[in-house]
Order: sequence, then C-alpha cells, then structure tokens
Amino acid sequence: MGKNIQLPRGTYDVLPEQSAKWQEVEQKINELCRLYQYKEIRTPVFEHTELFQRGVGDTTDIVQKEMYTFQDRGDRSLTLRPEGTASVVRSYVENKLFGLPDQPVKLSYMGPMFRYERPQAGRTRQFVQFGVEAIGSKDPAIDAEVISLAMEVYRSVGLKQLRLVINSLGDTESRIAHKEALIKHFEPRIDEFCGDCQSRLTKNPLRILDCKVDRNHELMATAPSLADYLNEESQVYFDGVKGYLEALGIDYVVDPNLVRGLDYYNHTAFEIMSDAEGFGAITTLCGGGRYNGLVEDLGGPESPGIGFAMSIERLLLALEMEKVEIGQSADLEVYVVAMDESTKKKAFTVVRDLRANGISADMDFNGRKVKAQMKSADRKGAAYVIVIGETELESGKVALKYMATGEQQELEFEAIAGAILENR
Amino acid sequence: MGKNIQLPRGTYDVLPEQSAKWQEVEQKINELCRLYQYKEIRTPVFEHTELFQRGVGDTTDIVQKEMYTFQDRGDRSLTLRPEGTASVVRSYVENKLFGLPDQPVKLSYMGPMFRYERPQAGRTRQFVQFGVEAIGSKDPAIDAEVISLAMEVYRSVGLKQLRLVINSLGDTESRIAHKEALIKHFEPRIDEFCGDCQSRLTKNPLRILDCKVDRNHELMATAPSLADYLNEESQVYFDGVKGYLEALGIDYVVDPNLVRGLDYYNHTAFEIMSDAEGFGAITTLCGGGRYNGLVEDLGGPESPGIGFAMSIERLLLALEMEKVEIGQSADLEVYVVAMDESTKKKAFTVVRDLRANGISADMDFNGRKVKAQMKSADRKGAAYVIVIGETELESGKVALKYMATGEQQELEFEAIAGAILENR
Repeated sequence: MGKNIQLPRGTYDVLPEQSAKWQEVEQKINELCRLYQYKEIRTPVFEHTELFQRGVGDTTDIVQKEMYTFQDRGDRSLTLRPEGTASVVRSYVENKLFGLPDQPVKLSYMGPMFRYERPQAGRTRQFVQFGVEAIGSKDPAIDAEVISLAMEVYRSVGLKQLRLVINSLGDTESRIAHKEALIKHFEPRIDEFCGDCQSRLTKNPLRILDCKVDRNHELMATAPSLADYLNEESQVYFDGVKGYLEALGIDYVVDPNLVRGLDYYNHTAFEIMSDAEGFGAITTLCGGGRYNGLVEDLGGPESPGIGFAMSIERLLLALEMEKVEIGQSADLEVYVVAMDESTKKKAFTVVRDLRANGISADMDFNGRKVKAQMKSADRKGAAYVIVIGETELESGKVALKYMATGEQQELEFEAIAGAILENR
Repeated sequence: MGKNIQLPRGTYDVLPEQSAKWQEVEQKINELCRLYQYKEIRTPVFEHTELFQRGVGDTTDIVQKEMYTFQDRGDRSLTLRPEGTASVVRSYVENKLFGLPDQPVKLSYMGPMFRYERPQAGRTRQFVQFGVEAIGSKDPAIDAEVISLAMEVYRSVGLKQLRLVINSLGDTESRIAHKEALIKHFEPRIDEFCGDCQSRLTKNPLRILDCKVDRNHELMATAPSLADYLNEESQVYFDGVKGYLEALGIDYVVDPNLVRGLDYYNHTAFEIMSDAEGFGAITTLCGGGRYNGLVEDLGGPESPGIGFAMSIERLLLALEMEKVEIGQSADLEVYVVAMDESTKKKAFTVVRDLRANGISADMDFNGRKVKAQMKSADRKGAAYVIVIGETELESGKVALKYMATGEQQELEFEAIAGAILENR
C-alpha cells in the first residue's frame, strides 16, 4: 500500500511508558493549582491570526517567522496558538471576567502550542505548555506568588538544580527613556548590524540586545542598561517583588540583560533555568513576566497582569538530566487465565467483577495456551494470577496466587475482590 | 485599539466553573483506563494529510469536506486531525508496537479534534474526543470489552438514559457480496439520486444508505440488507460478540442500518445514544467499531483492531439533559486577611505555609480594606478565615475562624495548619 506515513517533522508520539510520566506531572500541577487557587481555563487550539499579531507583537520572531497560519474553508485567517497568554487575555476580555468582584482572576492552562522552528533537543514544533495568568492586580506580592508557583512545580517533581533570574523592564516612561538612549547608542553604527537589527532600531531597539547574530558586536557590551533608566515607581515596584521573594526564602539572581522575546512585557520579567549537566543549549525551563497594558490592547479595561509559561517537554528533559525517576506506570493487579474456550466466559465476568470493585484486571484475547498466558501475566507485572478451568467452574472455588511470594489462597469466586482489597 | 477579537466560529472557551466538570470527567476516565488497562498514547494535533486520506477514507465526508488542511512553511500538506484512530494506528506501525509480545496493545487517547462543519448544539469545529483502540486481536471478547468500557464511562459519571446499538458490517467477502447487490439495486434508477450518491454507487454504495438528501427515496427501504449477506464466519463472530455482551449483562439493540460514517469499519459497529429528553438532533454520544485491515493499509503487518471515540462535549450535554451535577469546583480552604500593609508580608508567608501543608489558601492582592477582604473570602467560599493585624504579629497568636459556625480558635501561627488538617 505504498510507503509508510510518518510523524510530521518536529513532532513526537508519547507512548504508554512515557505517558505515565506526563500524567504524574499533570497531577502534581493540578494539585498545586488547587493549593494556589489558579483555576483552569481552556481556549481553542487556533485563534484569529490578528490576536497574535496584536497580542504577541508584530515585531517578534514568533509572529514574523514561526506561526502556523492558514485560511479555513470560510476564508478566515487562523493561526495555531504559538503561546497561551494572548488567548487567555482574549477570553478574559470576551467573557468580561474583568467584571468579576474578585480581582485578580487567577487562571491556569495546559495544552499544545505550535511554533515552526528548527527542531532540536528540548525544542519541538508542537510542544505542551503549562502556564498561569493573574489578571487584575499590580501588587508586587502577586508577582512573587506567580514566581513561587513556577518554582514549586519544579520542586514538586523533584528537580533541584534550578536558577531563578529576574529583571525589571520598567513602566512605559522608563522604557521610552531607555529606548531613546538605545537608539542614540546604536544609530551611528547600525549599518554594521544584521537586517533584523536594522529594522528593530526604530520599532523595538530593546530586542537588538536579544539578537543571536550580532551578540558579539562591541556596541552590545556598552549599550545603556534599562536598570539605569527605571523611574522611581518602577524601582519601588521591583524592590517590592524582591522583598516578597525574600520573605518566601526564594533565591534569585538579577540579570539586567533579561528582556524576554515577547513585546508585551513590562516591570517584572523572570526565567527559571536548569543548571543540570548535559542539558544542552536551551536551558530555560520557564519564562514569565508582567504585562500591564495587554488587556487594554485587546479591548478590555485597565487590568494589569502577570503570568508564566513552562514547557513540559523541557521539564521532563530536566528530570532526565538530574536522573529523577517519576511516573511508575499503573501496574496490573490481577491477570485472569482461562484454561480453554469453555471457561473463557467465566474468566471474562471475573475480570468485569474485579474492575467493578476498583481492581485493575486483564486477560488473554488471542486464544493462547495457559503457559503463554502465564508469561503474559508476568510481563505485565500482575500482582495476582487466577487460573480458571473446568474444576474451578464445578467447585465454584478458585486459587488466588500472589506472584511475589507464590502463596496461594483458595476462595469462592465472590470472595476474590474482597481478599485483594484487604491485602492492599 | 480597534474592535475586540473574538473566538473563531465553532469554537468555545471552557471557563473555570466549567473546567471543574471537565477535570472530573477526565479523572473518571483515567481511573477506568487503569482498571481496564488501556494505556495512554499522545499523538500530534496535526499529521500529514495523506494519513487521513488513506486512513479515514477518500470518499468520506470528513476527508472530502471537513478537514482543516494547510501547507506548513516547509510546503508539507498537514491536516488538523479530524479523528483519533488513524493517528494511533500510524503510531502503532511507526513505533513497531506490533512487535510487542503482548497483543492486543490496548491504548487510550484524549484530545482536541477538528472538523469544519456547521456549528450546532453538540457540534463544534474543535471538539474533544476520548477514545480507545485495542490492536492485535480478533476475539469477540475484546469487542465486548471495548463496548463495555464505553458504557462504563457514561455510567461512572451518572448517566442512565443510554441506548447501545450494534451491527455487523461483516468481513470483506460478505461486504463484496452485499456491495454487488446494492449496485444492482440502485444502478437502474441512480439518476434519481443526488450527485454524492451517484459517485458513491461504484466507490462505496453502502454509504448511499447513510445519505441525508435521499433518505426518503423508495429504493432506500427496499435496499438489500447487509445482514442477509453475512457469510458464516462473520455471523459466528457477531454471535460471539452478542454472547459476551450478554455475559456482561449489557443490553443492546441490533440495527442493520447502522453503518458508521468511516470507510475502515468491518465486523462489529456500535453507537451509544442518549435517550434524554431535549437532547436535540444529534443523539449519538459514542461510535466505534472493528477495523481489520487498517493497520495493513497504513503499512503494518496483519493486526486486527477495534476501538471507539466519544465526544466529551456531548457527554457533558447529556449530563445537563439528565440533570446530573458533577465537578464541584475545588473550594478555598483558608482566606488570610491582612489588616494593613505592615502585616501583609506575614499574611503572605502564612499563605505559603498553609499551601506547603497541602491546604489551599489565598489572600488579597489589591490593597483592599478588611471588610472588602472578608466579602471576598465569603464569595470564594473559604472554609476558614484568619485576620492578621499588629496585635497578632506581637502576640504570635491568631484566631482561626470557622466560617460555617462562626466558631473561633486561638492558635500560635505554627499550629494553624495542624488544626485545619485535624478538622478535615
């Protein structure tokens, strides 16, 4: 029937032995969201393209180079979401969540995101992000809460080699002052820079500092630092965030060069990196920051917000690098062996009864001999085995065999579930 | 900033009060998958378009009219998955799961699917399907197991008004005999039928019976029934499935007109419908069937399979129609009130300590007065409230107030978590 069809480039399958890990991470995240009271929101996988142009920023790499954009059959321009914040803010505005009496509204999300990038370790074209957004508060304490929740996710799965880096991007006034200084600094020699940087000069000169091509140009090291242009309000806010982080006992490093790749950030910006050996080129596990103004940009009333997003793929990679084991696959409790066709229906109802009692159970569905069924029970890691033949059918009694010790217990059929639950 | 951006047509947001319901359904499904030993697999949201052309069938409405197909930036034709089976089978082949010693491989999946259809109640363009596939067995018992798992999902969430409809589509020999009879039946008067039916006549005449346009044509009622063309092997298999369903005590109705909309089915086909009042035009909650041959079509060795898919949106709709309440939102346990700025940092660390003890806790992040904070605690349904002022800071003691009764308990700060856990 022709050649086999394979996975699209930059994507991957999560097979059963891996999915148990994903499930454990998700459970831990759900529990932390309950403790921190970030309630789940689910938005569509695609949105109108304009949302990301306006909400992520026209000058970003994401919007310019990395989006999966297409026309649907009704000629709408749609885009697979490249990140979660724009969608959550769109929903906050569209559903008028700004009208709820309790602000900030604390939301969490988890799901697939899509960026057309060169695939490499820790970077796939479809990836899963967990993120939170706290919208409707500009209190340094909520910035610290959001950061601490991100740190707590990593701690809860057992990661230890983490580094939290923070910075302040200041408010609009501070950023304008800094922007002017940057233009003044780069403009005389901008023709020595790449084309991207040349167009960034007037649109968003801050992003020149983020350029991978010109990172070693001598003007980079001497560029004016935003830290020197923060006005008093921005400085006070940043000090507040640092104070709350200290109150929580969370270590951090201030890096004035941390600018983040998205246009909408201001004030607090942060990243959490893995210091684990062998992690590869991309060490950022999580990025986030404050985005006062984004809700207004998307048509809502003034509602300052802060959030983060983390890749679950990178979290799992970090676990591997730190050699932390999680996600033991849910093992089989009972394998029911049918001696032959005539006892199979009885075996089938025994399996049904065990499951109805909350006990995982399985059997053969390929007409295999008893010996092959026993091997299967063994490979599946069954804790107990029951063999049902004519004798058992007639006597109404069956031997429950505990595989770890070889011990057997003779029981009526009806007593099997009870005995297993008792031994748990 | 221009008009607001809204949800793409045919999609929806799940807001926090709804997402608790989704989470409960997912938990119940995960538990059933553990009991039945269907392990989770996760495949990408998009695949090469060819997968669905070959795996779902070129003549289906899905492939012809409903797919979200686009070119990526590398000029690949990709399609947002319209269903889950083709992807799971692609993964089974690509990852050589047919080589595992324990067949059938029992897999489950849950995630968004995409079909460009006219939106209506119970039908959205992005929808979430839970499904399972048991690949590598042609045993009537596994057909019955798959059907019983689907029924169990609905029962576990509390649905009662369900109807299971089954049919046999027979094996290839039976289908060819039936196909010839259908062509003979319709051919002389095919010009009275719609264009779709005319092209179905030679490609896949079975699907004429499924046509919504010509459903009342007189030839429909007199068309030859597949039931009369089942060869002995197919009849024996179908009797086997019915026998196992009876052994499990699962009621069913045989409907010879049940053909399912996908090309790949043979032998067992089934649907579960809701009989709840007010459910609307679309009453099918779940559909599934056997697809011997599909694995070969996608490049693998002979590996007969069976599975089902159910829409979670329709399950939730059925719950509404049957007036079953699920998903109580995880309530807040403790709201910590800070009297003023000077005690806020203490309140912040108390919140942190409670969470570290597995107790959900929250506080104000908008500098509101004590009275407003108390109202917020009330709206959030906090079980306990703690108020921290200068007095509490100095004495090191605080009153834990139980909101249901108004009772108070005077405690050292360190004793709060313990007292709450004890009262649970």
